[in-house]
Amino acid sequence: MSPRSHPSKRADQLVVLGQATPRAPGEVWLVGAGPGDPDLLTVKAVKALALADVVVHDGLVSEDILALAPAGARKLSVAKRKSRHAYAQDEINRMLVAFARDGLTVVRLKGGDPFIFGRGGEELEACRAAAIVCHVVPGVTAALAAAASAGAPLTHRGSAQAVTFVTGHAAAGLGPDGQARWGEPALDWESLAKTNQTLVVYMGLSAAPAVAARLIAAGREAATPALVVENASRRDERRIATTLGRLAADIAGLSGPALLMIGEAMALADVGATVDAQPVFALEARA
Amino acid sequence: MSPRSHPSKRADQLVVLGQATPRAPGEVWLVGAGPGDPDLLTVKAVKALALADVVVHDGLVSEDILALAPAGARKLSVAKRKSRHAYAQDEINRMLVAFARDGLTVVRLKGGDPFIFGRGGEELEACRAAAIVCHVVPGVTAALAAAASAGAPLTHRGSAQAVTFVTGHAAAGLGPDGQARWGEPALDWESLAKTNQTLVVYMGLSAAPAVAARLIAAGREAATPALVVENASRRDERRIATTLGRLAADIAGLSGPALLMIGEAMALADVGATVDAQPVFALEARA
Repeated sequence: MSPRSHPSKRADQLVVLGQATPRAPGEVWLVGAGPGDPDLLTVKAVKALALADVVVHDGLVSEDILALAPAGARKLSVAKRKSRHAYAQDEINRMLVAFARDGLTVVRLKGGDPFIFGRGGEELEACRAAAIVCHVVPGVTAALAAAASAGAPLTHRGSAQAVTFVTGHAAAGLGPDGQARWGEPALDWESLAKTNQTLVVYMGLSAAPAVAARLIAAGREAATPALVVENASRRDERRIATTLGRLAADIAGLSGPALLMIGEAMALADVGATVDAQPVFALEARA
Repeated sequence: MSPRSHPSKRADQLVVLGQATPRAPGEVWLVGAGPGDPDLLTVKAVKALALADVVVHDGLVSEDILALAPAGARKLSVAKRKSRHAYAQDEINRMLVAFARDGLTVVRLKGGDPFIFGRGGEELEACRAAAIVCHVVPGVTAALAAAASAGAPLTHRGSAQAVTFVTGHAAAGLGPDGQARWGEPALDWESLAKTNQTLVVYMGLSAAPAVAARLIAAGREAATPALVVENASRRDERRIATTLGRLAADIAGLSGPALLMIGEAMALADVGATVDAQPVFALEARA
């Protein structure tokens, strides 16, 4: 659909839909949906979803989470991973502005946190340029959830005094579209290869061989512990504890969205533990 | 109090207290409380709190959040910032194990995320060594909340391809206790001074002059945008937009826990906007 084919204006039905506190229409909420488990949404994200006339969401956001929006809210998927049907970022930006101008409360629901590799900054800039009020709700970024379920701290006394987040695209010297280079300089491998820090590579599967080779070439020990987490916090989460030297070989069976986590503190990862990604008990809103 | 002065065993009262799903006693939950706003707790954190017999919490965790634990749960503050009455980390570790061994469900409630400068890894190791089951619930780390409320993305196309988290102690070459050095090497200022990345310094106020001087000495432009956020997501949140060159002078009036955020993407910070740190509407549990 194009940004011009809007749904009918529904802001005037807010009270009918049972909202305790109807808000002024025509605002955009950039909301972090967390890593996947609906229980890892923030309370604020749940409340923002309840306000939505339209939910514009990434393809990875689950049905369980979308069900927290009002039944009458329109739900649009705009970014199916590796799909030819994904919207370009500027199309998404225009869509958010157009919906808000049409008087709707727009929830832009993004996996993880909107400002960690979520391109939320570009959407915020588009709203500002159009004088649309834009709220940002932070979320649990995937690295935090992966570390929690594996029991492998991102910082740790004596073995990780810092943590750095990059993307596989940046690690491979590519732009976010997998083509043009995204800014300068490329990653500083000499620095990332030093000890006493954790490196997290988002969307790292295809870049893993290059990441491992460059870190080792820059002096990082091949025996450095590494943890790979696929589908962090989801029911199908998979964790692989390996080393930098074995990383490329050990991820051969993975295909889902995955994080590479490299550093001495990853020695604490417990890949045999029962995945603690299940909700403690069911979300009331799903009943 | 010493780890030997336990409260009376209360696990057998769980059903009486109205728990829908009583859990086996004797477990530890390391729970990220988020940055301060109770609405930035995860749903899972709220649920874990409801299970607590004992809550062992940092001094910065608010009463609003502690009120989510059962009325009968014991609440112990163990880390008052800069207080002589704070517990040493090994005392906290022993306390968690002792409570769990006494049959209690222990919630160790930590500001932000347990595994980002929360020393949660040490508590997890203590539980593992004592064969105590330990769950970890990730949380919204303060940098994500500060970025969200200021509208300043931590990563951004063309201006921040990576983000690194360090502490003021590490930046000043000190250990987490402010004394001995915490591991080697010290931070790599040459690398951190490069463009196209965001550097976040937790607990950074006292280290700010040194951080700014070292980055500039290593080649970072004095005009590089910087954002300082005190009490991120709390009602008394304060934001200062400055530059690396003016950073040390501009923070003179701050005294609370603060983040330094340095990098080109901080140019997007809107310090004049109404702080969007207020709950959308009141938490039901606070009624």
